[in-house]
Amino acid sequence: MTHFTDLVDGYRRFRTADYRRQHERWAQLAEGQSPKVMVIACSDSRVEPAQIFDTLPGEIFVVRNVANLVPPFENDGGRHGVSAALEFAVTKLNVEEIVVMGHGMCGGAHAALTEMFHDSPPGEGGFVHAWVSLLDEARERVKAKCGDGPGAAREMELETVRTSIANLRTFPFIPEREGAGRLTIHGAYFAISEGVLHLMDESGEFAPA
Amino acid sequence: MTHFTDLVDGYRRFRTADYRRQHERWAQLAEGQSPKVMVIACSDSRVEPAQIFDTLPGEIFVVRNVANLVPPFENDGGRHGVSAALEFAVTKLNVEEIVVMGHGMCGGAHAALTEMFHDSPPGEGGFVHAWVSLLDEARERVKAKCGDGPGAAREMELETVRTSIANLRTFPFIPEREGAGRLTIHGAYFAISEGVLHLMDESGEFAPA
Amino acid sequence: MTHFTDLVDGYRRFRTADYRRQHERWAQLAEGQSPKVMVIACSDSRVEPAQIFDTLPGEIFVVRNVANLVPPFENDGGRHGVSAALEFAVTKLNVEEIVVMGHGMCGGAHAALTEMFHDSPPGEGGFVHAWVSLLDEARERVKAKCGDGPGAAREMELETVRTSIANLRTFPFIPEREGAGRLTIHGAYFAISEGVLHLMDESGEFAPA
Amino acid sequence: MTHFTDLVDGYRRFRTADYRRQHERWAQLAEGQSPKVMVIACSDSRVEPAQIFDTLPGEIFVVRNVANLVPPFENDGGRHGVSAALEFAVTKLNVEEIVVMGHGMCGGAHAALTEMFHDSPPGEGGFVHAWVSLLDEARERVKAKCGDGPGAAREMELETVRTSIANLRTFPFIPEREGAGRLTIHGAYFAISEGVLHLMDESGEFAPA
Repeated sequence: MTHFTDLVDGYRRFRTADYRRQHERWAQLAEGQSPKVMVIACSDSRVEPAQIFDTLPGEIFVVRNVANLVPPFENDGGRHGVSAALEFAVTKLNVEEIVVMGHGMCGGAHAALTEMFHDSPPGEGGFVHAWVSLLDEARERVKAKCGDGPGAAREMELETVRTSIANLRTFPFIPEREGAGRLTIHGAYFAISEGVLHLMDESGEFAPA
Repeated sequence: MTHFTDLVDGYRRFRTADYRRQHERWAQLAEGQSPKVMVIACSDSRVEPAQIFDTLPGEIFVVRNVANLVPPFENDGGRHGVSAALEFAVTKLNVEEIVVMGHGMCGGAHAALTEMFHDSPPGEGGFVHAWVSLLDEARERVKAKCGDGPGAAREMELETVRTSIANLRTFPFIPEREGAGRLTIHGAYFAISEGVLHLMDESGEFAPA
Repeated sequence: MTHFTDLVDGYRRFRTADYRRQHERWAQLAEGQSPKVMVIACSDSRVEPAQIFDTLPGEIFVVRNVANLVPPFENDGGRHGVSAALEFAVTKLNVEEIVVMGHGMCGGAHAALTEMFHDSPPGEGGFVHAWVSLLDEARERVKAKCGDGPGAAREMELETVRTSIANLRTFPFIPEREGAGRLTIHGAYFAISEGVLHLMDESGEFAPA
Repeated sequence: MTHFTDLVDGYRRFRTADYRRQHERWAQLAEGQSPKVMVIACSDSRVEPAQIFDTLPGEIFVVRNVANLVPPFENDGGRHGVSAALEFAVTKLNVEEIVVMGHGMCGGAHAALTEMFHDSPPGEGGFVHAWVSLLDEARERVKAKCGDGPGAAREMELETVRTSIANLRTFPFIPEREGAGRLTIHGAYFAISEGVLHLMDESGEFAPA
């Protein structure tokens, strides 16, 4: 089992190997970041974008939360973490692509599908319940399509991607840039059980990469 | 420059190398995750926890947002992404350690210090401004200590860690577990320019690992 | 510049990362090796087979000498290092494939082509001269084909592969196993300047992989 | 099981990742090699120096043969592969350090200790027998010290390092450079069963690094 002391050991390896060997890259990164891709992924410990996409430091700007969710645009003066990251990546860093990646065995999608934390107070599931309420409409679609059948879990996981992409487009600066050909949005899904990445096509269907 | 097609290339490398070689690990991960450490880090493309800590899939549950911020506990029924992730990691996955990692050259900390997006509407900096308002009190402390001096930027970056840790402790389930010896909180700071990780001690001061 | 202390540092990284993470693999390797492929490559620091072929411990049995040369079968009771390795890999470990890999900018091939150490005593080039005399016939072919033209160096490098493969077949146990379909021989060439691997076809010609 | 097709897959990974990412390093390597360390190791598939020492392309000049043996200096005009590599590395490339690395479970050391191929013709063990006759004197020392006891195998493996180092010093250009402080020789031993590297001290004894 990995604890914080192992992370510090890991840092020492990073420091004597990757950091030292990519010294020029890091010297450049120290002057500023200019990633071209933003990735929105789940906090799940198994779906690390840098590992699944084998990227280097500086290549992807990353948001991670439960179920890789993007809430819709809300102009209410409130604190919106994903909106802030999105605004920064798209309008300040000028990323050219956004990838929303869902994954198999997603605890957040499971909670949305089963409403298992329906009556839980904050601190016992209530925060998760409120957060995944972003998937309420998606759950209705999944139930209509799959009932309680075996395909419902995966369908719900795919819906996290479709929902986040739909919500992305409620931010005015997104369709504006998509229309001008300056921004492209991609949907992806990592099926943990088989280790296979699926890509979403324009109709919202997923197929192995 | 890295684009989405490069990420798909990277996935193919992952698939034929890491995934295949760690087949047994992935078979185990397919049955469920059980990370012992949660990491809260910035979305910045240069501070990938899995790279800096050289971890494997399954080892760290990760939240990433602008300036690695944790808002305080709010029992208002609203959608709180970080709170949901925290609740899930601590009360459902039973992580034993939480690491908050700040970093040098942080755009979010810079925005908090300079209030550069003070008048910006949502979509032009307004979301970032609202989000980093979590650092308003910290900014006052930084100004009192450093004025407009050269140390203010780093001090503000260190304050992102201290503020998030203070806010973590407003969630009732956190001090409860800390008191019972079941949870430990760590502060860390990655100085990009020198590539050095700093660790926070109990008094809130940082020193190289 | 890398010195022995850096190698010991590297071992410590190996020990805390690769070795620990591949614990089960190493437990298995501790019971015996069973590589299916033997690789004969040059000692040149730039053509590490494990790096170019991205292999794991236990996968390839490796001989490395100047210019990746295999001397012909000699039944004279003398000490023959390559013959010993070949005998061990093919008749004891039962490898199923042998790869001879040449490379660009090969100092040994250059010495063979130019006969630059023709008059050098042992210790000043004489050992290299004697060793690459295995390429004397090859040099005649190269000179006949390319003269002193610009293609001669690469042709000589390709000849190191063809010569070694021809010599492999003077060992009775090699064609015997090839005939029975139990052993396959491959020729390869790594063009350092372009970083491209070339594979040899049955007629002895090379093309990018 | 790994076959040649897997090696070509591995090359494609190398090509799209390591080679591309270390483009500047390779551009420099394309102008010439200048390793500071020569490593003499066994052909055994489990003791890849680049993996155990976590080195990069260009860092180590490598000879690999059965039991990491260096024959003594012989001025007989014959073809001596190790002598050629040694001469090239020391007198042409001017390496500053030589590492001889033995290892546990060494088939060559085992053959030397047991004389198991004593009556085998070439192609059935005879080549190995002749090659490891370099260890005949070492075997006498091992038998005197350990008899047929359980420590004999490891003692024989350590003797491969001591014998090779003694033979290195029969090449006039070696002690000459050692005396002038321009060359240092190191003995090492990788204990496969425990994954531990041992370093040899000046008295020829080994201890964990």
